[in-house]
Amino acid sequence: MSDEKLTPQNVDFSEWYNQVVQRAEMADYAPVRGCMVVRPYGWALWENIQQALDKRFKDTGHVNAAFPLFIPMSFLEKEKEHVEGFSPELAVVTIGGGEKLEEPLVVRPTSETIIGYMYSKWIKSYRDLPVLINQWGNVVRWELRTRLFLRTLEFYWQEGHTAHATEQEAREETQRMLDVYADFAINEGAVPVIKGVKSQAEKFAGASLSASIEAMMGDTRALQAGTSHFLAQNFAKAFNIQFLDENNTLQYTWTTSWGLSTRFIGAIIMTHGDDQGLILPPRLAPFQVVIVPIFKSDLETVTVMESVHRVEAELKAAGIRVKVDGRTEVTPGYKFNDWEMRGVPLRIEIGPKDIEKGTVALARRDRPGRDGKSFVPQAGLATAVADLMTDIQKSMLERATVFRDSHIFDPKDYAELTEVVQNGWAYSYWCESAECEAKVKEDTKATTRCMPLDQSVEIGKCIVCGKDAKQKVYFARAY
Amino acid sequence: MSDEKLTPQNVDFSEWYNQVVQRAEMADYAPVRGCMVVRPYGWALWENIQQALDKRFKDTGHVNAAFPLFIPMSFLEKEKEHVEGFSPELAVVTIGGGEKLEEPLVVRPTSETIIGYMYSKWIKSYRDLPVLINQWGNVVRWELRTRLFLRTLEFYWQEGHTAHATEQEAREETQRMLDVYADFAINEGAVPVIKGVKSQAEKFAGASLSASIEAMMGDTRALQAGTSHFLAQNFAKAFNIQFLDENNTLQYTWTTSWGLSTRFIGAIIMTHGDDQGLILPPRLAPFQVVIVPIFKSDLETVTVMESVHRVEAELKAAGIRVKVDGRTEVTPGYKFNDWEMRGVPLRIEIGPKDIEKGTVALARRDRPGRDGKSFVPQAGLATAVADLMTDIQKSMLERATVFRDSHIFDPKDYAELTEVVQNGWAYSYWCESAECEAKVKEDTKATTRCMPLDQSVEIGKCIVCGKDAKQKVYFARAY
Repeated sequence: MSDEKLTPQNVDFSEWYNQVVQRAEMADYAPVRGCMVVRPYGWALWENIQQALDKRFKDTGHVNAAFPLFIPMSFLEKEKEHVEGFSPELAVVTIGGGEKLEEPLVVRPTSETIIGYMYSKWIKSYRDLPVLINQWGNVVRWELRTRLFLRTLEFYWQEGHTAHATEQEAREETQRMLDVYADFAINEGAVPVIKGVKSQAEKFAGASLSASIEAMMGDTRALQAGTSHFLAQNFAKAFNIQFLDENNTLQYTWTTSWGLSTRFIGAIIMTHGDDQGLILPPRLAPFQVVIVPIFKSDLETVTVMESVHRVEAELKAAGIRVKVDGRTEVTPGYKFNDWEMRGVPLRIEIGPKDIEKGTVALARRDRPGRDGKSFVPQAGLATAVADLMTDIQKSMLERATVFRDSHIFDPKDYAELTEVVQNGWAYSYWCESAECEAKVKEDTKATTRCMPLDQSVEIGKCIVCGKDAKQKVYFARAY
Repeated sequence: MSDEKLTPQNVDFSEWYNQVVQRAEMADYAPVRGCMVVRPYGWALWENIQQALDKRFKDTGHVNAAFPLFIPMSFLEKEKEHVEGFSPELAVVTIGGGEKLEEPLVVRPTSETIIGYMYSKWIKSYRDLPVLINQWGNVVRWELRTRLFLRTLEFYWQEGHTAHATEQEAREETQRMLDVYADFAINEGAVPVIKGVKSQAEKFAGASLSASIEAMMGDTRALQAGTSHFLAQNFAKAFNIQFLDENNTLQYTWTTSWGLSTRFIGAIIMTHGDDQGLILPPRLAPFQVVIVPIFKSDLETVTVMESVHRVEAELKAAGIRVKVDGRTEVTPGYKFNDWEMRGVPLRIEIGPKDIEKGTVALARRDRPGRDGKSFVPQAGLATAVADLMTDIQKSMLERATVFRDSHIFDPKDYAELTEVVQNGWAYSYWCESAECEAKVKEDTKATTRCMPLDQSVEIGKCIVCGKDAKQKVYFARAY
């Protein structure tokens, strides 16, 4: 870590983001354009995200598997919208084992096609359904403008692919996984998200309907943090995924797909971070607590480190993820800054005076300065820390929710819409025409984010053209 | 699953292997030549392998990270032996985003080069050392002859890459990870392995020394199940990984790398399987216990299923991985065969008579027929099952060890060596010359596997040429 201060968020949010990702050692640029290295601290966060999601997937009946990285080019061409959407972004292997390949292989940008092909081999009867498979892996999309975590050539994600006997079941699955993502984002990431349906222009290439969770970043821009697609029979027909139903009639299956990626790390950083660095939610933080020993003389060191290790052991036994920063070549002040940069939710300071008094000093990362400082007895510390974890998690969600809600506007007319999207989201009636959507984008750079699912049944007038509109949509500039 | 019997191992071991992998639904062929789909049952086994290894890596101070899939071609060329070894096996991306790339990108066959490049950026001082990073991921090697799990174009593995201040530390790390692999193989996989050093001909391209764990399969062929490489300063010099030591002198680091792959699944299958299918070690089995309810009438169904679910809940509460096979469209006999094919360590049968008597019937997968059957009281079942898991694990290791040891020979001369390697391994003195090694391979197809580390200091005469030999080596036909 360097001693330099971060560029403040209100000076240049984008520069702040780039700096914090690197100074907190979350990720680094790879020597291949647009690719990233996820460093151990960033990967530990991703592992916690994986665990929290994987548990939810398994609890809803899904199993994991692994499908190949390479997809024959001809597979992509079987679904018209799919190939149109993805062909500009492909990385293509043309040479294997020193020889030119007869058919080029695409490095998967997503796996509907190759998984569809396998499902057509495996699924024969209604008894084989539903198939509920998820895959954790890497995918490649040849993006031109890239940023660490938010948009990289290669990224890490999970992609669920399910096949069902009926349309109803597939629609329910689409909704179920959207709910799983929202539950995860809100309760693990402390990232308040809005669930809704994407517009036709913004949907996944090949889907019949795409739903997403949308989050507001600290600069009020929107970030699509996870998507769930109802694919109808589009891929089933392209890949001939058929089954004999209970009446012995051949039917096409109904499929879904859903994904959440390392982009979510970007969402956590930009939802919670401040000018001192990251602020990580306790439920996902690689280290929930950092202990910084304070000592001057060698004699103090021995006594202090004894207490430090005892506290460390107590917290670990209580299932709390603890890091002791025992470095001797840097000052406590340097360590405070370092761990604030890395967003560790709680700092415990233990010095000779604390030992005398039988206390420790606590500093909450989410409440900088005096406000977040307290002195608590060493006795019962594990319980106090566990309670604080819960409280910090809750406070972070509340703070992010208040921030978001205070930046969502209900503009009275189009002129006001063009203003409010410069510093927030507009929630307005929209006639669902591509023309009105394009006009807003052209005039303001804001796109439609999603149409929430729990709208009232009232109707209104499109904020752009004034025609009848059945639904409201969020307009926002987005990552 | 099909009803057909497997080809017996003693008729055609290779055919048996191909059949069991597919019928147990471990893996399937992908539509891209040489690639595999790891199906949910196979992937669940891999996840258990991952957990068991990952815990050992973290306990020995390692952290995980993720490095890019793509490596610039020029990187591979920086280490001469490395590029010579790997260039015939590369998959190369030449097109990205619709444009021909200026520099082709290699899909990583292994990551020493790109990780070496990043280490040269990150490591500045002795305080930054050691760097102990592992990566779980996929790699691609363009193999011509492929077999599911054993040798596929794309495979899954972990690759550890460490950098150290001294040669001594790097050599210790090489040994430590070899020991971790052996401990994992023996105590989790019930696969007895021999640790040793590879010959110059068999070592990793770019390594100074390669060590491996070698296992004997059911047809007596050897399988290299994990490798640990001491890379000396070869990659440090190629990528300029330097640090300032405590005297402020610039030094090259010493590096290691070590890997274990989905190949290990092949080792488990071929070490333990029999003519009925897989036999999975309890510590790694996706399901440790399958419960098959036995009923004829609807009335029986209700009573039986009540007991089944109670037993299921009790076993789950004791941390045992249980599957209940409640299918109604197939007979219990079909289910027995099905789960025997999949190698579930223990089957529990519960029928009306068992309920009357308050017992259940147990059938051990590792002891087919009456020998492995017993009736035990339902009271205290979880403890009985947990004990059985320990016993099955132990028995499997013993059986495999006895089999291996009875197929390792000490041939008195070269003629006998050429015979014994047709149905076992030869453990013989070898002068370490490439010529003698090549002659054995030419005459018998057997290669040198490894030179064990714990040999006595006696010396002898090379089994091939009769010259002085300092060490013994295993000769075996290998996968």
